[in-house]
Amino acid sequence: MARVTKGRSKKAGLPPGTLIHIGARKVEEPKITILDYDENQFHEREVKAIEECFIFKDKPTVTWINIDGLHQVGILEKLGECYGLHPLVLEDILNTDQRPKMEDYAEYLYVVVKMLHDKGKRGEVEAEQVSLIVGPNFVFSFQESGGDVFEPIRERIRSGKGRLRKMGADYLMYSLLDASVDYYFVILEKLGERVEFLEEELVTNPKTQTLQEIHHLKSEMIFLRKAVWPLREVIGSLERGESPLIQKTTSVYLRDVYDHTIQAIDTVETFRDMVSGMLDIYLSSVSNRLNAVMKVLTIIATVFMPLTFLAGVYGMNFKHMPELEWRWGYPLVWTVMIGVGAVMLIYFKKKKWL
Amino acid sequence: MARVTKGRSKKAGLPPGTLIHIGARKVEEPKITILDYDENQFHEREVKAIEECFIFKDKPTVTWINIDGLHQVGILEKLGECYGLHPLVLEDILNTDQRPKMEDYAEYLYVVVKMLHDKGKRGEVEAEQVSLIVGPNFVFSFQESGGDVFEPIRERIRSGKGRLRKMGADYLMYSLLDASVDYYFVILEKLGERVEFLEEELVTNPKTQTLQEIHHLKSEMIFLRKAVWPLREVIGSLERGESPLIQKTTSVYLRDVYDHTIQAIDTVETFRDMVSGMLDIYLSSVSNRLNAVMKVLTIIATVFMPLTFLAGVYGMNFKHMPELEWRWGYPLVWTVMIGVGAVMLIYFKKKKWL
Amino acid sequence: MARVTKGRSKKAGLPPGTLIHIGARKVEEPKITILDYDENQFHEREVKAIEECFIFKDKPTVTWINIDGLHQVGILEKLGECYGLHPLVLEDILNTDQRPKMEDYAEYLYVVVKMLHDKGKRGEVEAEQVSLIVGPNFVFSFQESGGDVFEPIRERIRSGKGRLRKMGADYLMYSLLDASVDYYFVILEKLGERVEFLEEELVTNPKTQTLQEIHHLKSEMIFLRKAVWPLREVIGSLERGESPLIQKTTSVYLRDVYDHTIQAIDTVETFRDMVSGMLDIYLSSVSNRLNAVMKVLTIIATVFMPLTFLAGVYGMNFKHMPELEWRWGYPLVWTVMIGVGAVMLIYFKKKKWL
Amino acid sequence: MARVTKGRSKKAGLPPGTLIHIGARKVEEPKITILDYDENQFHEREVKAIEECFIFKDKPTVTWINIDGLHQVGILEKLGECYGLHPLVLEDILNTDQRPKMEDYAEYLYVVVKMLHDKGKRGEVEAEQVSLIVGPNFVFSFQESGGDVFEPIRERIRSGKGRLRKMGADYLMYSLLDASVDYYFVILEKLGERVEFLEEELVTNPKTQTLQEIHHLKSEMIFLRKAVWPLREVIGSLERGESPLIQKTTSVYLRDVYDHTIQAIDTVETFRDMVSGMLDIYLSSVSNRLNAVMKVLTIIATVFMPLTFLAGVYGMNFKHMPELEWRWGYPLVWTVMIGVGAVMLIYFKKKKWL
Amino acid sequence: MARVTKGRSKKAGLPPGTLIHIGARKVEEPKITILDYDENQFHEREVKAIEECFIFKDKPTVTWINIDGLHQVGILEKLGECYGLHPLVLEDILNTDQRPKMEDYAEYLYVVVKMLHDKGKRGEVEAEQVSLIVGPNFVFSFQESGGDVFEPIRERIRSGKGRLRKMGADYLMYSLLDASVDYYFVILEKLGERVEFLEEELVTNPKTQTLQEIHHLKSEMIFLRKAVWPLREVIGSLERGESPLIQKTTSVYLRDVYDHTIQAIDTVETFRDMVSGMLDIYLSSVSNRLNAVMKVLTIIATVFMPLTFLAGVYGMNFKHMPELEWRWGYPLVWTVMIGVGAVMLIYFKKKKWL
Repeated sequence: MARVTKGRSKKAGLPPGTLIHIGARKVEEPKITILDYDENQFHEREVKAIEECFIFKDKPTVTWINIDGLHQVGILEKLGECYGLHPLVLEDILNTDQRPKMEDYAEYLYVVVKMLHDKGKRGEVEAEQVSLIVGPNFVFSFQESGGDVFEPIRERIRSGKGRLRKMGADYLMYSLLDASVDYYFVILEKLGERVEFLEEELVTNPKTQTLQEIHHLKSEMIFLRKAVWPLREVIGSLERGESPLIQKTTSVYLRDVYDHTIQAIDTVETFRDMVSGMLDIYLSSVSNRLNAVMKVLTIIATVFMPLTFLAGVYGMNFKHMPELEWRWGYPLVWTVMIGVGAVMLIYFKKKKWL
Repeated sequence: MARVTKGRSKKAGLPPGTLIHIGARKVEEPKITILDYDENQFHEREVKAIEECFIFKDKPTVTWINIDGLHQVGILEKLGECYGLHPLVLEDILNTDQRPKMEDYAEYLYVVVKMLHDKGKRGEVEAEQVSLIVGPNFVFSFQESGGDVFEPIRERIRSGKGRLRKMGADYLMYSLLDASVDYYFVILEKLGERVEFLEEELVTNPKTQTLQEIHHLKSEMIFLRKAVWPLREVIGSLERGESPLIQKTTSVYLRDVYDHTIQAIDTVETFRDMVSGMLDIYLSSVSNRLNAVMKVLTIIATVFMPLTFLAGVYGMNFKHMPELEWRWGYPLVWTVMIGVGAVMLIYFKKKKWL
Repeated sequence: MARVTKGRSKKAGLPPGTLIHIGARKVEEPKITILDYDENQFHEREVKAIEECFIFKDKPTVTWINIDGLHQVGILEKLGECYGLHPLVLEDILNTDQRPKMEDYAEYLYVVVKMLHDKGKRGEVEAEQVSLIVGPNFVFSFQESGGDVFEPIRERIRSGKGRLRKMGADYLMYSLLDASVDYYFVILEKLGERVEFLEEELVTNPKTQTLQEIHHLKSEMIFLRKAVWPLREVIGSLERGESPLIQKTTSVYLRDVYDHTIQAIDTVETFRDMVSGMLDIYLSSVSNRLNAVMKVLTIIATVFMPLTFLAGVYGMNFKHMPELEWRWGYPLVWTVMIGVGAVMLIYFKKKKWL
Repeated sequence: MARVTKGRSKKAGLPPGTLIHIGARKVEEPKITILDYDENQFHEREVKAIEECFIFKDKPTVTWINIDGLHQVGILEKLGECYGLHPLVLEDILNTDQRPKMEDYAEYLYVVVKMLHDKGKRGEVEAEQVSLIVGPNFVFSFQESGGDVFEPIRERIRSGKGRLRKMGADYLMYSLLDASVDYYFVILEKLGERVEFLEEELVTNPKTQTLQEIHHLKSEMIFLRKAVWPLREVIGSLERGESPLIQKTTSVYLRDVYDHTIQAIDTVETFRDMVSGMLDIYLSSVSNRLNAVMKVLTIIATVFMPLTFLAGVYGMNFKHMPELEWRWGYPLVWTVMIGVGAVMLIYFKKKKWL
Repeated sequence: MARVTKGRSKKAGLPPGTLIHIGARKVEEPKITILDYDENQFHEREVKAIEECFIFKDKPTVTWINIDGLHQVGILEKLGECYGLHPLVLEDILNTDQRPKMEDYAEYLYVVVKMLHDKGKRGEVEAEQVSLIVGPNFVFSFQESGGDVFEPIRERIRSGKGRLRKMGADYLMYSLLDASVDYYFVILEKLGERVEFLEEELVTNPKTQTLQEIHHLKSEMIFLRKAVWPLREVIGSLERGESPLIQKTTSVYLRDVYDHTIQAIDTVETFRDMVSGMLDIYLSSVSNRLNAVMKVLTIIATVFMPLTFLAGVYGMNFKHMPELEWRWGYPLVWTVMIGVGAVMLIYFKKKKWL
């Protein structure tokens, strides 16, 4: 539940473009890494001061600056000034409760996506905001904490194999988006296992906790939906290639990410449907068990109430009760009692309650 | 519930443009404040008569006239006459149950938004209508009561820092919209806390009041939805820059408010989903408790009914009941009784009712 | 329920344009009134024969012919012939179960709206079909019975005050639409009061009739929805000014009616949501009461069953029951009984059932 | 349930255009009737061999060939060859589980609609496929069995009255569509009566069969929806007059059918809403009755359990039970018992259970 | 449930175009068959090495290469190289959890559809991915396992009858699509039978398993929906003929498949509605049975509790109980008891519980 918009209210009344980091501070020290490459050369460096990055500004090579940790607002301010970023972009980068979106500022694109992680014992899904700024020869990526989802891409750049080193900044952006979306499936598979496990538990041994787990999964789905749905539009508008920053050849690849996004959405929706169905099953299994309990009670009561009544009758102390004097009175009463009980049981048998 | 359209029926049959204030009278005396500024100069005044405002009409500076309290219809009439406002606009300003909307009257834009407040012990959300009229060099804002959401903007104008003093009337309008929407998040966070609190209470200790609180929150959401949803369209159409009164540079800022609005809508929808889910949980927890109650009843009845029957049997007064004469009859009966009880309890153990 | 399409089947198999009045006959004698006016002059007359109206046909003044009562098909036929109305239009006027619609026949517009009334003790909402035919200099309005919703408009024409006398037939049409839609709010407010009353009753004292009232209100909403929803499209298409019969200046006014219509739709939808929520509350309050009943039963049974068993045990007639002979046997049994009862009650206390 | 796609699987794997009749064989012998007319002349004939029809092919008069019964595939093949119909059209005519659709083959239009009938005791609605092929001077109509819905149209052609004889093939098509849609209202009215009857029964005397009837009506609605919804699109696209085969003057008439279709859809949707609401009412009335039953049980148990316990106490056989010796012990016990019972009843009275 | 996205996570972090087969390995050895034909000639061959296919590349005849079994990645790589297929296409072919889609790569189209099979005792529906690549003179089809749905098409090519041999590669693609969609109806009919069977069982003899079967069918529908819905868009975009690879004459045929797809979707939706309705029925039948059980219990308890109480009273051992001494006391008590019992039963009769 800690995922509902929080801290946002701090900003009410402040002028637009005010840089305040909203979100949990996740790393001690911001970490800035630079990867600068083209087909032939490749530089990788971790820098302390953001100013070291500015030398790459006018080089034709692709420069990828990755910043982990957003709470040191100064870094962003300097970067923004050097590259001429709009104050609202800087504000949104720090505002980590954005929904995925794409904004075209002509000289650069600003893309917000959510990276998913699962944490804790119950496998709660967490979303981290990743902001990308894509220019003609640079990509800036901003994360709240150091995620390793981008590590394989760094590896591919270092090794120089494949297409990545030969293509421009737009292809790098594609690769980052692709890595994020691909990781969704890792999360979705784990969730799928939980859904399956729950479904089995529901059939074999429904417990009160099952209900809470269903509820928990349900709100997990609401959360995932919020993170994944808007992505469709984001990548869709990138793919339609309205910006000259995105080249035709990259469009095909973006369509591929688009397909994956829709698949992820599909999966989330399927899970939602399944979890909803489970609630129905749970509720009706509760009703069924109530029915079973009531049947036991009714059978016992229906069998023993008349018998107890009979016993009560012959426990009365009237002076004149001829049956009491009979030689075979007692066995007779037993016979009657067993008869009544048997009739009742046959009746329940016929009604399929036994 | 007092929020459902009321007082509207007073107007049935009246000609269009009839100025009647619909809404609770919220302030004693209407308060008119003027802020007139450009990059170099700044005037602030509280006036008694609206006529004092008219001197600013033809000045190139930006004039912001804010009117708190709408019940003195005369003020509006004079202002409308001076600035050539359409009678329907004046009527709508007084009609405080408008839904958020934007109307383009070529020379000026008419924008209606809802400002949210929370009042009372239960934190009920209230909506106040704020009407904005935006011309080339003026902004009029009309409120039912004096809200302090705009105070930070006044402060920014006074201080002369930031962008506000350098930009035109459209940027002022943006600032007012932004302040209103930003305040939504304050309200939403408080609601979010109530939702979280309720969710926890639901799991740990559901009470009958919980149900009423769920219902209450649900109708709160219906209400919020009505206030926030149409805003999307309003700001969307402002942002698309169809009116020459909105400059390109302001468009970017409006897109930012647009994003915030969608985020607010998203949050409201998430709350709705969560509150709906809670009702399901509540209902099934009621069922579960019923089940638990019934199990106790059934166990007690099933254990004691046969035993009472047995006791009843040997309470009968038949002359010839050989068991009664037996030396060990009584302990034997006790043994049988304890045996029957134990069998029953084992049966329930096996059925997992204990 | 009498509102579901009826009588329509009479027309199956008949050629198009066959004039048959479908609907309850609501007035004894059709009433034809003429108002003919321009800015300077004004005539009002009630005529017996429709032919008297034809003299106004070629005058430049605006002629408003209002006909209450549709069962005398001849009137319509003559009017249709004189003004060249399409047979399908005449058929639709008589067919009082049309949904609101607008049809553009180039020389004239045909508009169908629903006027709402509430009748009877339970305040059931009824809808009456009002057909408008709007030409360059005439408006014909057809009602099933004489409604007084248009009376204020007649009054305004008579008095000559305001805009109405100065404007054309399109403005008159607007006024009629506005009067109808404004009256919706009268109906909606009454419904709102019923909804509020019901909601309060639901919380304080839910009864079986409450359920029926909820159901009743629900189908009232379904009915209202059917009457109001299509109006949005009707007025929307009038407002977009696709017909040359609607002047630009009137468009602004139509936008106002459009807003009112959307507000009415909004209110209906809010009511629907509220009534739906009530059903949930009702159902769970029923469950809660069942729970309460079952708890009482269980407590009583759980306390008294073991006690009755104990009493039964010492009511047995075994020869050798040492306890019976004990000096303090009887008080001891009472002590045990009170102890058992107390233990049970403490158990229930702990379980929060008491 | 027999309405779910059946027999369709027979066609899997066959080449397109394979003529196999799918559907129940409904008539013994196919019946071919020809009506050939223009404003001045009129021929009607029932033919045995389809070849007799071909002489009308090049005449300027309108030729209406109606074929009842589709299982003799040869007829269709010859007709298709003579008039150059696409094999897929012929295949679709025989495939009687098409959804309503319109296909424009330039020289002719192919229209599929559903004719509704109600059959059997429960008034189950059945749908029969009617295929229309409309060319410049011919209309072919194909029915599975001989329906009399088209009889009034034949009558109108024979009599020569009205517009029909003066207009072209497109107007004939309109008339056939209109007749089909008009008949929907006959069916809908009958259904409406069943819905009303059920609603009344639900309130006054809900039975288990009521539930089944609700379920039955619900699936009836699903079925109707499937037949009526697509018609909207079909007639809509005809009305928009994209085909030169449809004349402007006929467009107006098609708009009228379009309106009727929407009205039919509206009615179906209203019924659906009403039937859904009924299920809720039924379920809560079941809950209410359960509540009532449980209250009776609880009252009885709560009153008699303590009393029986008391009686049991004084039925114990302890030697030393001073009360038993008292002179007024017995009446005293009765007094206590009556007192306890009265207290219980007062308690229930206060709780409004009585 | 094994149908939820699986194995997908293996690909996270890999570069795009990496060829990894995702899905269960279904055949031992990939099987490659070639059919090469035009109107006059026809070759069919099963090849071991994919290289044998390349000789057909530049021939004007239509070449259909069908590959069953995807786990030997090398085959695909070579084919891709020879025909210049985009690496993403090859990747998607191996990724068997694609949703149906169509991608236009100018020189060729890439189409993904799902072929449905039912397997196992419960008739669980399985979906197999079929990828089609369609060029000017070739069609490649890729299946996970050897399905026989395409066998009739092969037969038609061999026999040379019909249109197939005379048309191009686009018509072959159409035929393959048509065969797949036609087979959906075989699956849907079987499902329909299960739905019907279940519905009958629900009415006559609802069991706990019925609920599980309903749940099972429901998730079957979710699964089917996912497979069939996107197909609508796929075939729709093929039919609109945006690609020059699709000829006009084939468009008509594609429209036919389009209609079938919509019909299949319609059927799935109808099943969904029916299955949803069943759950409601099941739940209320459970409630009804609970009601019936409770009535039996209540009747028994209400009849016997007062009687047992009476018997208990006269089982008390008070010294002074005058009734016990009466000559007719015992028969009198019996009379009273029978009277009380009869009154109770009459009461229940009146309440319609018996």
